[in-house]
Amino acid sequence: MLNRQIHLVSRPQGLPEENNFKLFETHMPKPEEGQVLVQCLYLSVDPAMRGMMRDIKSYVPPYQLNEVLTGEVIGRVSESKHSNFAPGDFVVGRLGWEDYSVCNGENLRKIDPNPAPITTHLGTLGVPGLTAYFGLLDIGKPQPDETVVVSGAAGAVGMVVGQIAKLKGCRVVGIAGSDKKTQYLINELGFDTAINYKTTENVKSTLKEACPNGVDVYFDNVGGDITDSVIKLINQEARIVLCGQIALYNLEKRDVGPRLFPVILTKRAMIKGFIIHDYEARYQEAITQLSEWIGQGKILYNENIVNGLESAPNAFKGLFKGENLGKQLVKIAD
Amino acid sequence: MLNRQIHLVSRPQGLPEENNFKLFETHMPKPEEGQVLVQCLYLSVDPAMRGMMRDIKSYVPPYQLNEVLTGEVIGRVSESKHSNFAPGDFVVGRLGWEDYSVCNGENLRKIDPNPAPITTHLGTLGVPGLTAYFGLLDIGKPQPDETVVVSGAAGAVGMVVGQIAKLKGCRVVGIAGSDKKTQYLINELGFDTAINYKTTENVKSTLKEACPNGVDVYFDNVGGDITDSVIKLINQEARIVLCGQIALYNLEKRDVGPRLFPVILTKRAMIKGFIIHDYEARYQEAITQLSEWIGQGKILYNENIVNGLESAPNAFKGLFKGENLGKQLVKIAD
Repeated sequence: MLNRQIHLVSRPQGLPEENNFKLFETHMPKPEEGQVLVQCLYLSVDPAMRGMMRDIKSYVPPYQLNEVLTGEVIGRVSESKHSNFAPGDFVVGRLGWEDYSVCNGENLRKIDPNPAPITTHLGTLGVPGLTAYFGLLDIGKPQPDETVVVSGAAGAVGMVVGQIAKLKGCRVVGIAGSDKKTQYLINELGFDTAINYKTTENVKSTLKEACPNGVDVYFDNVGGDITDSVIKLINQEARIVLCGQIALYNLEKRDVGPRLFPVILTKRAMIKGFIIHDYEARYQEAITQLSEWIGQGKILYNENIVNGLESAPNAFKGLFKGENLGKQLVKIAD
Repeated sequence: MLNRQIHLVSRPQGLPEENNFKLFETHMPKPEEGQVLVQCLYLSVDPAMRGMMRDIKSYVPPYQLNEVLTGEVIGRVSESKHSNFAPGDFVVGRLGWEDYSVCNGENLRKIDPNPAPITTHLGTLGVPGLTAYFGLLDIGKPQPDETVVVSGAAGAVGMVVGQIAKLKGCRVVGIAGSDKKTQYLINELGFDTAINYKTTENVKSTLKEACPNGVDVYFDNVGGDITDSVIKLINQEARIVLCGQIALYNLEKRDVGPRLFPVILTKRAMIKGFIIHDYEARYQEAITQLSEWIGQGKILYNENIVNGLESAPNAFKGLFKGENLGKQLVKIAD
């Protein structure tokens, strides 16, 4: 039996293209003592992977060319030589984009297939949900009646941010890239309003109308022009949570924009970048709370699932076209 | 006897010019019940006044045209109908740019003419010193062996920032606009090194050499290109204290610069703007500590004093040409 893998074969210039990736067939890996063989069931397709495709050192090392891509994966243990895992266990962790992965159990967590579907461990109960939870609550610190704006609002992180902000009694304004998305945010998730930045003629004035009391917390998934427009509306002591800058990930050189530090200064605002892994010690707290909210129907989620390992590169490309409503997943096996 | 006053008669476009200001002679003010008549001795000439010359609402209201300018002033009480003040008291507060001011005692503080000269209450023991103290210690939170970079390092705030950072065991790098200033910072104030941004060909690479371990705290008085160069060198969890953006104050339209949020994000850095008045309740703590350091010779200061109320507009203009080494004052009377 062969093991299929997706390799990065060239580094994207600008938007990723299908020819940056290639499907290879290789031999089935065998676990050694202390290792686990995992059958991959679902891959998480994540905008942050774009950064690792550049050949620069960041908070994680870049992907190597002609090696298997890695990302968050849900799988089932097929064979275990590790005392913590047994065949049949469902697990989540950083594994390869392949049919079967071997790993030493580090960073591999067992997950409970009940009560929420296992795929939520790549979304609302996984890295995106944890990112929303800690970024919003720990850095944004939303207070009742404050206005929270979230960009990339219909993505896996943004949806959870907006819903938690509603639970905290805030006015919530989402920014997303299609009417289907904005309607979903308003009608299904209870956002107070949402703006389609692609069809709105004047995003700044529309935002201003949507935020009659200004902006207290801005959860930024996108960067660029949208972020400029939001920052111009911030209130005193506003908190800006830098979570992602997807608008800038595919630019070949550094973009320019208006200098907004004078606004940050006179508003005594705070901007903080964060990386979810810094919160690892507190993951369980968030998972417990998010599971409770999901169980109570207070946090809804949406998944966009495509089938087949071979579809993964195209799904990744789609992230930057704004094709996904909620978490983008690839299903590899049942 | 007449009272001379400096009025703002037109709003500067770009750099302030002498014809934006005019000296008027008016009648001597008389204090009413509950008021104090103060003879002004020294005016503080402060870059932040530039912001108040624009006709826009900020954290303080803008100056009105054809009215007396206001700023931090040291004076001596000439006549008092207020129970807290007696003739002969030295005071500091927000008063007019004029020979004599009447005020109701709000925001007027008595100062001790010993042990430090009264002028220090416009510098190291005044708003600039307090700004340095709280901005650096409360927001920047420098730790021993960290690298602290301060721009506008030879100004009234920057000098104190660098010296406090040295007291906290940091490597301190100053950025200033002349060799006279950088030599003063290194030879007199004990900065580890200082960079003359006007004559250094490649500020970015020179900064990189000056900060071999990266930048942990950046105290920003200037904004613009210099700030871009520093931000590119920040370490993980760096703190950027936004205190001033003097490079941008005289621009007629908003400047553009590289988008650096991706750097802030991947470095999990924090940027915080602040206004010294938010710390009013804690001023005494800072004044006590700074006075002690001055008394022990651990914090030195430099003042640039010009004579005569009529010299004030030109001294203000000089701030933006980088003429002052330390606090810029105007002496009005003995």
